[in-house]
Amino acid sequence: MHRVIISGIGAEIPEPVITNEELVASFNSWVDTENARRADTGEPLLQKSDSDFIVHASGVKSRHVIERDGILDPTRMSPRIPARPDDALSLEAEFGIASAKKALAHAGVDGSDIDLVICSASHHQRPYPAIAIEMQEALGTKGAGFDMGLGCSSAAAALHVAVNLVRAGAHKRILVSTPEIITGHLNFRDRQTHFIFGDASVAMVVEGLAQGEKRPGRFEVLDTRTWTQMSNNIRTNLGYHTRTGQDDPYMINLEGNLIKQVGNKVFKEVTVAGQKFIVEFLAEHGLTPEGIRRFWLHQANARMNAMILKLSFGHDVDHDRAPMVLERLGNTAGAGAIVALSENHADMKAGDFGLICAFGAGYSIGGALLRML
Amino acid sequence: MHRVIISGIGAEIPEPVITNEELVASFNSWVDTENARRADTGEPLLQKSDSDFIVHASGVKSRHVIERDGILDPTRMSPRIPARPDDALSLEAEFGIASAKKALAHAGVDGSDIDLVICSASHHQRPYPAIAIEMQEALGTKGAGFDMGLGCSSAAAALHVAVNLVRAGAHKRILVSTPEIITGHLNFRDRQTHFIFGDASVAMVVEGLAQGEKRPGRFEVLDTRTWTQMSNNIRTNLGYHTRTGQDDPYMINLEGNLIKQVGNKVFKEVTVAGQKFIVEFLAEHGLTPEGIRRFWLHQANARMNAMILKLSFGHDVDHDRAPMVLERLGNTAGAGAIVALSENHADMKAGDFGLICAFGAGYSIGGALLRML
Repeated sequence: MHRVIISGIGAEIPEPVITNEELVASFNSWVDTENARRADTGEPLLQKSDSDFIVHASGVKSRHVIERDGILDPTRMSPRIPARPDDALSLEAEFGIASAKKALAHAGVDGSDIDLVICSASHHQRPYPAIAIEMQEALGTKGAGFDMGLGCSSAAAALHVAVNLVRAGAHKRILVSTPEIITGHLNFRDRQTHFIFGDASVAMVVEGLAQGEKRPGRFEVLDTRTWTQMSNNIRTNLGYHTRTGQDDPYMINLEGNLIKQVGNKVFKEVTVAGQKFIVEFLAEHGLTPEGIRRFWLHQANARMNAMILKLSFGHDVDHDRAPMVLERLGNTAGAGAIVALSENHADMKAGDFGLICAFGAGYSIGGALLRML
Repeated sequence: MHRVIISGIGAEIPEPVITNEELVASFNSWVDTENARRADTGEPLLQKSDSDFIVHASGVKSRHVIERDGILDPTRMSPRIPARPDDALSLEAEFGIASAKKALAHAGVDGSDIDLVICSASHHQRPYPAIAIEMQEALGTKGAGFDMGLGCSSAAAALHVAVNLVRAGAHKRILVSTPEIITGHLNFRDRQTHFIFGDASVAMVVEGLAQGEKRPGRFEVLDTRTWTQMSNNIRTNLGYHTRTGQDDPYMINLEGNLIKQVGNKVFKEVTVAGQKFIVEFLAEHGLTPEGIRRFWLHQANARMNAMILKLSFGHDVDHDRAPMVLERLGNTAGAGAIVALSENHADMKAGDFGLICAFGAGYSIGGALLRML
C-alpha cells in the first residue's frame, strides 16, 4: 500500500473581471425592460438588485470570467463564445489544460509521466468523447482518462478516487483537473444566483511516495473522505432526457433548466453538515480543528465558512487559518477550495496539517487531510 | 491490500420492444414526408432504410426501450416521457435502482451494507444533484455517491474505480450502476444510428474478500484496466456551453448536437485497438485468449465482436465462448457487456477465467479479468 502525495498544484484564473457594480447595472437594465413588458401583461414586477445586497448575501465583490462579451448585454445575459468545430480543442479541455500545465510544472513532471487524467467538474461540455481524453491527447499523457462530477465537491471527490487508485497501485501518477466554466450555465436573469459564480480551473498531480523518498514542501494525503445526502436545494435539470418531455423533442428551452438554489436552506443545512464532517473526520485521526494549521474550505459564501469554522472551533477563526478567495473570484464551484490551497500553502512548515473541505450540490462534502512533508 | 470480488450482478431490461420492421416503417414514413418537402426546396433527397440493411450493418433485430410512445410516431420520433417534478425520483435513478435491487439480492446484502454508489453511464439526466445520490437515498445506502461517464466503457471504468477503492480499503462494499437510457438522446431521423441502440440498466456489487472467506459462484476480480485515445468518430455536443454559441442562449437546438458516428472508422480502429488490448492485458497475466472460458464483450456490432475475437484467437470463436445479447437488445452502451455477463455465467466452474471488455466512445476500452471462486 503506497503513501500518496499531492506533488503539484495549479490554478488558472481567467483575466476578465466583472465587478458587482457592472453586474447590477446590467441586471437592473434588464429588469427595467422586463418590468415594462410585465406592466402590460399584469405579471408581478421583478425586484432590482444592488451591490450591497450582493456583498451582504455572499461576500463576493468581483468575479473572473472566461468571456465578458455578452454577459453584461441586457439583451443577451450570457457569455458569447462561438461554437468550435469538432476537431478543435474544446473550451473546457483548454481551460483544464491551462491549470494542468501549472500543476505538472509544480510537480516537476511531464505529461508523459501521467497515466490517468480525471476531469471532475460541476458541468461538462458534452458527455463524449470525455473531456479528460482531449486533455490526455493535448498533454501527451499515457493510460486513460474519464470524466466525473459531484457539484462543488467535484475536485475533492476526484482527489478521493485518485488517492485510492494510487494507493492500490492501479496508477502511478494521476492528474486531477477541475475546469469550472460556471458562466456558461448561469442564469444571469435570476436575482438569487446571477452574482454568485465565477470561472476558474484547478489541477493537482497525485502520486505515490517511494520508500525513503523525501518531498519537502509537498503534501502527503493522510486520508480522504466523501459524504453525500440527497437534496434538491441546489439543482439543475438540463440533460438529454429533458427533450423527451417536450412537444418539440429537437429543441430544449433552458427556462427552468439552469441552476436554481434555495439559498437559506443550503446555508443552514450544509453549515451543520460541514461542521459535523470536519469535526468527525479529524477526530478519527486523533485531531481537533485547533491542531490544523490551515483550512481550505469551499468558497461559496463568506458567512457560511465563518459559521462552519465557529461551530467547529467554538470561536471565530481568522483568514490566516482559513483563507478566502471568494471576495475576488466569486464561487468557482469545485475549483474554489483548490484555488485557496494553491494560493495559501507556501508559508506552511514540515509537519503542519491542512484540511481541504469542499461542499455543495448533492448535498455533497469531500475532505482531504494533508500534512506537509 | 484486499482481494476483491463481484458479489452481485443485476440487469434490468425494460419490457417494451421495437422490431426492425416497426422502426423502418416509421423511419420511411418520415422520409416520405421529408422528401416531399425537400422536393419543393431542391435539397438532396434522403434514402429509405430496410430491415436487411440494419441486420447486415449491426446484427440488431430488435431493441427494448423504456417508452415506445412517440418513437414510432413519424411526426415526433422521440420517446414521449412527461417531465417529473423535482421531488419525484428521476427516470435515470429509477432505472438504476431496478438493476441495483437485483444486484443487491444476488449479493445477499441490503442497501445499508453499501457505502458508495457510483452511477456511471454514457449520459446523465442532469449534472446535480448526482443521480447516484438519488439512488443512495432510495436504496438506503450509506457513505456517498458520485456520477461518472466514459461512453460505452462507463461500467468497465466504474468497475476499475470501485475495485481499487475497495482494494485500498477506502470503501467496504460499492454499488456500480449503469442505467443507459439511450433512446432519450437518439436521433431517430438519422439513418446511420437510429436503429443501433436500446435501453438497459445494469448493476454490480463490488466488495472485499475476507481472509479465508469462500464465495463459490462469485467472481474474483484479478485485475482491471482502462485505456483511452482521443477520437471524434463517436461524439455528441450537448452541454451547457452549447448555449454560449447561440443567438438565443436560453434555447438549445438539438440538431447536430445528438450522437453522431463515423461507423466505418469506428469499426476499423476500435477492432484493432480492442484486439490489442485483450491480448496484451491477458499476456501480462500469463494468459492467452484460449485460456479464457468466456468473453463478455461490448455489444455494439456483431461483426465487430467476431472480428476482434478472430484477431485475438487466430480463428473464429462461437457464442458459447463470447455470448451476444445484441440481436435481441441492440447496443445498450455501457450496460451491454454486463448484460452479457449477467445472462451467461451460471454454467461456469470454479477456477474458470472470464474477461469483461467494453469499448466505445472516446475512444475508450475497459477490461476486467475475472476468475470464478
